Amino acid sequence: MPDSRSIPNHDLGMALIGRGSVGVDEAALRRIEDSADRVLAEIGIRFEDDPETLDLWRLHGGVVKGDRVLLDGPRLRQIIQENAPESFTLRARNPDRDTKIGAGQPPVFAPIYGAPNVLFENGERGSGSLAIYRQLVSMAHAAPALSNTGHMICVLNDVPEPARPMEMALSHLSLSDKPFMGSIASPQAAVEVIDAVSMAVGRKATTGACELLHLINATPPLVYKENPLKCLRAIAQRRQACMVTSYMMMGATSPVTVAGTLIQGYAEVLAGLALAQLWSPGVPVVMGLFAIPFGMSSMLPCYGDPASHLVQIYAVQLARRLGVPVRGEGGVTSAKVDDGQAGSESARATAASVLSGADFILHSAGWLEQGRCVSIGKFEREARAIAEAFGIERDQCPPPSPLDRRLESELRRRMWM
Amino acid sequence: MPDSRSIPNHDLGMALIGRGSVGVDEAALRRIEDSADRVLAEIGIRFEDDPETLDLWRLHGGVVKGDRVLLDGPRLRQIIQENAPESFTLRARNPDRDTKIGAGQPPVFAPIYGAPNVLFENGERGSGSLAIYRQLVSMAHAAPALSNTGHMICVLNDVPEPARPMEMALSHLSLSDKPFMGSIASPQAAVEVIDAVSMAVGRKATTGACELLHLINATPPLVYKENPLKCLRAIAQRRQACMVTSYMMMGATSPVTVAGTLIQGYAEVLAGLALAQLWSPGVPVVMGLFAIPFGMSSMLPCYGDPASHLVQIYAVQLARRLGVPVRGEGGVTSAKVDDGQAGSESARATAASVLSGADFILHSAGWLEQGRCVSIGKFEREARAIAEAFGIERDQCPPPSPLDRRLESELRRRMWM
Repeated sequence: MPDSRSIPNHDLGMALIGRGSVGVDEAALRRIEDSADRVLAEIGIRFEDDPETLDLWRLHGGVVKGDRVLLDGPRLRQIIQENAPESFTLRARNPDRDTKIGAGQPPVFAPIYGAPNVLFENGERGSGSLAIYRQLVSMAHAAPALSNTGHMICVLNDVPEPARPMEMALSHLSLSDKPFMGSIASPQAAVEVIDAVSMAVGRKATTGACELLHLINATPPLVYKENPLKCLRAIAQRRQACMVTSYMMMGATSPVTVAGTLIQGYAEVLAGLALAQLWSPGVPVVMGLFAIPFGMSSMLPCYGDPASHLVQIYAVQLARRLGVPVRGEGGVTSAKVDDGQAGSESARATAASVLSGADFILHSAGWLEQGRCVSIGKFEREARAIAEAFGIERDQCPPPSPLDRRLESELRRRMWM
Repeated sequence: MPDSRSIPNHDLGMALIGRGSVGVDEAALRRIEDSADRVLAEIGIRFEDDPETLDLWRLHGGVVKGDRVLLDGPRLRQIIQENAPESFTLRARNPDRDTKIGAGQPPVFAPIYGAPNVLFENGERGSGSLAIYRQLVSMAHAAPALSNTGHMICVLNDVPEPARPMEMALSHLSLSDKPFMGSIASPQAAVEVIDAVSMAVGRKATTGACELLHLINATPPLVYKENPLKCLRAIAQRRQACMVTSYMMMGATSPVTVAGTLIQGYAEVLAGLALAQLWSPGVPVVMGLFAIPFGMSSMLPCYGDPASHLVQIYAVQLARRLGVPVRGEGGVTSAKVDDGQAGSESARATAASVLSGADFILHSAGWLEQGRCVSIGKFEREARAIAEAFGIERDQCPPPSPLDRRLESELRRRMWM
């Protein structure tokens, strides 16, 4: 990776520390951008199994070689800077719970995303289920710190896969009136959930506002797979928001250095963010770089590592220069129980996100065991801590007004179509 | 307290968050300085039972009323800015372990200071003793993260009080060759330890370097007691360093708001730092504001609270404007065991110190239970985490060369004089 070894981790850290300011290292940011531009121009990005994306790049100056596309970094930045909004509003069933993301607003916190397992307060572990999901959504709704109830807080292992996206959406819609996140199970699922939620929110489309934020992941190194590409297109064309993230294992799917990881990840998300704007100019996007050192002895990612925090701090600045809101990580950890390690790793990760100025902080509550487990106790502890940190009133959010019965029946009917 | 309620905590926090930069809120800093100047001019500071300090203030324009002195804030700032060094070197018995403090150097980490009790790894608790102290100093020496072995890591409950200062100094000198901190048990003890350590370090006095850093605490609100005043004078006249700190319980010994606490604490340390420069122009000093919300139901301070972190972040900027190095807090927590709460509170406090740019971070390892207990397990966990965060080599520091036998006998003889 060009230039990456010439910016050691230690220098990046020291540039931030001891000056009393986080993330204003202009020269390092330029070098990361310039190096990413070289990666895009000389190596390019692979866009797999999606000819429409390749056609679009051909129209916009990409050099297409098979499914690999050589891209012009400065041009991608220009597309994003000229089109993507600096902030947008996620609308809720209850208009009082609409939340603005970006442009100096306080960060939005959402719970853990994607846990197959659950750790209960009595110390027992179990598999994620619909019943537990509904409990977790209710907890996220009740927590004043969480202004977004997220998506896939645990996996619905007892629900057939095709029914999961709408079942999750129905849980969020019926047990909460806060905004939440959309499905990326397939482009069809994404669109079905978008249509259902738009109906439930029941307000007409306006510029600068949408109902759902979706997690679109690159597949590092330097690849986008078919499903995220098709979801990105479908979602953008529905004028809903995408959080385009590169989720890297440092030393496995990205270089082992912080600088190298920043360069690769920034190249990847630059392509994804520009794609969203090309499909649907002005559509809301969020940028994310989530990088975890991969343990070469454990063969597991080491969450909560300081290297991740440096990536986080620089990611915020890179996003600011693009003029788009940016993702942060909440309480990520490799710990298996909510012990000193869990508390320490999680709090450091959250502090790096909050202090660097991240706008949407995912995995803010409940994460344990490399994200393989949602802990009920840690969920409540972290939600309380965020509320205290932000001086949010401690009372629980009152239960939502019930979802319209006919609408709920209609959505349930669609689920089984 | 003037102006404090017009700067709510939330505004201070939001000024830092969402902009991607910590601590560059110029307007708020000026208001804190101006308000502190009003406190100094209209209320003043009490300097108890030390006529020499009052005489000194009379010479330098203080308006002395009993033991209360009305002071000119801008003049105090000028005295500090014109005389105090931006950085200084703490010298060790091993010159390779000399550490520079301030001026953009990486922070220096020192262990917990002042714990009467000990929590062992088997879960048992005990009273601090000389044997445990020697074990803790050896641990601090072995930890590459800790470049200063501190002072009073636990209390030597089994040693007569008059012998404790030299017994601690001898432990640090014989079991380590890193710099450490001096005694403030009394002005005599401070001077005896300074003379002993200067002898052991064995290098002649030079500008910009000294052997020992001493903790000089104000007694908020707006008081300095006799012993710290006399220690400050004795230490400054020996050209050794003082860390002048206001250690406030928010809502008990300082206003409950972050801004009010900053105003009061800044007024206090301004007076103490200027005193050091008046006694001994150019002597090294470190500024510290350590503020903990006082729990009105528990009647205990709530360590690791976000309000403390805001005070920390602003303290660094206020010190930068004075041109002196600044203290940070490490892993402070109210937790009684090293659990999720301990990890979370400690890591947040340390992150606030590191990311805001603190120069000397006290209580970096081992703190539990409002500082009433040093935990052997937490000490090792935190020392490891700091080493990982700063990319410090993981090998333990090799044992030091033995302290000269004759010197050790001479110091032991003095201890019983």
